[in-house]
Amino acid sequence: MQRRGSQSKSWIIVAALTCLLAGPTSACAQDQQDNPLHTATRLELDVVKVVLAQEKAWNAGDFDEYIKGYKNSPDTLFMATHITRGYAQILDDYKKNFTTRASMGTLTYSELEVHPLNDIYAVCLGKYHLDRSKKEGGPADGTFSLVMEKTSDGWRIVFDHTT
Amino acid sequence: MQRRGSQSKSWIIVAALTCLLAGPTSACAQDQQDNPLHTATRLELDVVKVVLAQEKAWNAGDFDEYIKGYKNSPDTLFMATHITRGYAQILDDYKKNFTTRASMGTLTYSELEVHPLNDIYAVCLGKYHLDRSKKEGGPADGTFSLVMEKTSDGWRIVFDHTT
Repeated sequence: MQRRGSQSKSWIIVAALTCLLAGPTSACAQDQQDNPLHTATRLELDVVKVVLAQEKAWNAGDFDEYIKGYKNSPDTLFMATHITRGYAQILDDYKKNFTTRASMGTLTYSELEVHPLNDIYAVCLGKYHLDRSKKEGGPADGTFSLVMEKTSDGWRIVFDHTT
Repeated sequence: MQRRGSQSKSWIIVAALTCLLAGPTSACAQDQQDNPLHTATRLELDVVKVVLAQEKAWNAGDFDEYIKGYKNSPDTLFMATHITRGYAQILDDYKKNFTTRASMGTLTYSELEVHPLNDIYAVCLGKYHLDRSKKEGGPADGTFSLVMEKTSDGWRIVFDHTT
């Protein structure tokens, strides 16, 4: 499914890179075989690091750290079944929707791709799997696309479309 | 649901604008009541025009016109249940998935919003409704987010995430 013929805009599939950043115990050994390591730019590396830091924070049950992946702005948007507007509201919604550590389960990202738009904006795509007990709502799977901006604090999500 | 307090980055909800562009017969009279007209920037107007031109082309059964909303580039992406890569493949997939005029049904966009990132990039959000006979697969509803780029040909979609 993943074709890598046309890279004129320098996007790459960073599955293998993700594996390296996530460490040898991550669940992407198969991905690594399918997608041998490409040369990642600084931009792509920096974007992936932010997203993987979110994964790590989630699995530590640390919303305050997780939310740092988003730009602290009233314009930041999260789109799922409805649109949540602003950093503060996004954090609030997360805390309302996941009231216990058990309800958060264990989050795994995969098939991350970074598509730079220019030096300041990039799109990051990926899939998520939420491993969670049936009692807590069961496992969940979906895709996401993130528009990310290079801010003075580093790369931050300004728009999150999660399905 | 739609809050309009924080507009420091000059995004606006363009539902009312959309109504004006779509004409008095469009199905967004209620939207217009809910969202009185805001002052739209040139950028927002130009982005919405491209999206509404797609709606019009779809309802004329004209794929070749519809696809013009996308940037003619191998880097253009369409993300739904899987990722389609490149303008040519996106057009090809549309033609494969909608083989007859009846299967295309009638498309209506609503709740369009334009969020400029800078002068060259913008995010456009919205909902779609596809009115279609049961025989052709029945009606469909979903949301979409588009990353759009100001190209020499005008605003074009470089990334489409449709659910």
